[in-house]
Amino acid sequence: MKEIMSTEYFYAPPECVSERQIVITGEEARHIAKVLRHKKGDMLTVVDGQGGEYMCSIAAATEHTVTASIVNKLRKSHEPIARVTLAQAVPKGQRMDFAIEKGTELGLYAIIPLFTKNSVARPGEADRLLPPMPDEEGPGHKSARWQRIAAAAMKQSLRSVLPQIGQPEEFKDLMQRHKEFELILLADEGQQKISVASVFKGLAKMPRTVLCLAGPEGGFTQEERDLAQKHNARIVTLGPRRLRAETAGIVLSTLILAQLGELGE
Amino acid sequence: MKEIMSTEYFYAPPECVSERQIVITGEEARHIAKVLRHKKGDMLTVVDGQGGEYMCSIAAATEHTVTASIVNKLRKSHEPIARVTLAQAVPKGQRMDFAIEKGTELGLYAIIPLFTKNSVARPGEADRLLPPMPDEEGPGHKSARWQRIAAAAMKQSLRSVLPQIGQPEEFKDLMQRHKEFELILLADEGQQKISVASVFKGLAKMPRTVLCLAGPEGGFTQEERDLAQKHNARIVTLGPRRLRAETAGIVLSTLILAQLGELGE
Repeated sequence: MKEIMSTEYFYAPPECVSERQIVITGEEARHIAKVLRHKKGDMLTVVDGQGGEYMCSIAAATEHTVTASIVNKLRKSHEPIARVTLAQAVPKGQRMDFAIEKGTELGLYAIIPLFTKNSVARPGEADRLLPPMPDEEGPGHKSARWQRIAAAAMKQSLRSVLPQIGQPEEFKDLMQRHKEFELILLADEGQQKISVASVFKGLAKMPRTVLCLAGPEGGFTQEERDLAQKHNARIVTLGPRRLRAETAGIVLSTLILAQLGELGE
Repeated sequence: MKEIMSTEYFYAPPECVSERQIVITGEEARHIAKVLRHKKGDMLTVVDGQGGEYMCSIAAATEHTVTASIVNKLRKSHEPIARVTLAQAVPKGQRMDFAIEKGTELGLYAIIPLFTKNSVARPGEADRLLPPMPDEEGPGHKSARWQRIAAAAMKQSLRSVLPQIGQPEEFKDLMQRHKEFELILLADEGQQKISVASVFKGLAKMPRTVLCLAGPEGGFTQEERDLAQKHNARIVTLGPRRLRAETAGIVLSTLILAQLGELGE
């Protein structure tokens, strides 16, 4: 029997998990049985994307199906307590992939592909931003691609919660949902001074649900800033340098998670 | 005459800058004259990579040479005061490109490609990590590629200082130079608790020169951690999730620059 591979996590959604065993199929089964050549008796750590972590022993493994017996269960051992959602203006090319990967590693609860006045594409055009991969033809391939990137980053970073990658959403629609968040921060080049740290210094108590917004290359419009502020959003700077859209998203998420004590005490 | 294009910066190294004019050649001249079709009388902002920012008026433009008269000079208008150097363990594939681009946007002073015990490649092999681009044959192409990425990110982020992309360096050689830095921080998975913020809270005064180290996927070795601590390095956590090498580098740089007041007050 091999050692428990605590440094590699595998993913099986909750519908594959029963009381005593987990049935893994598809690409993940092929990876376990064919690529890594795991056999009966080998130990695996499987996460269900909803906080469940299972140490399992393989009962049977083919390249189509791996069946594993649950030996031990944990919940959310590497997960943040705070739920930080990043609304990320969708940048050009593959740069959104980066925001999804890094945001997942950092510990975001959800990532919303955001469309604003100055966005390079509209939600309906999202799929046109990238040429489809061979297995990603047809509408919605972009969203499937992002889900796959998030799942890979979840496993890589030892998380057990798969961040929700929301449907592309217009700025004004997202602002309608402002009551779902205790704190909303929007990073804007127009703001010269107020940092993330100074906003947190002024808070009476630590929020558990935070929405942060990173705009497109052209920035948010005055109308968008006004709408955000009407819904109690705090506008912050990330310093005097002009950050790319996806850099702003990750820097903002990093600073918020650090303030919430999720990156060390 | 067109408006000053304050949102696009161009790069000409100091040897191209004289008292009253700047002579831009090569790819940058082609970009200005041929791609953007700038003509005599158009205004440009040119940075020299060493802190000089020049507003200029084009005197003559061909696709080989653009000559511009200096109208106004600034120095380091978007530059951090602190000098933060990131020593980044070189990750696989194109992930180092990402660290260079994001690190430059953030405001790093220098980036050192770092080789440690658990690195996937040795310095001599650095060029083998990526297939050479058509214009990057031969030894050292990797370094030329990183320089080009840094120069593009400098312009994009409105910086005027081109971060030094050091020669690949072994961990123990870098530690020999520890006296060049007032503060050294090393991010390590073995450290469970002490955050970047808590280290800064304990400092008597703000450092002006900081070295931060982000290790490879396998982490630093005990021997490396001991050597770093012997040279007064502080070992910090970036939280309980396992970050990719380049993610750790950018998160660590972000948290340090924020503590130094370089990402807003």
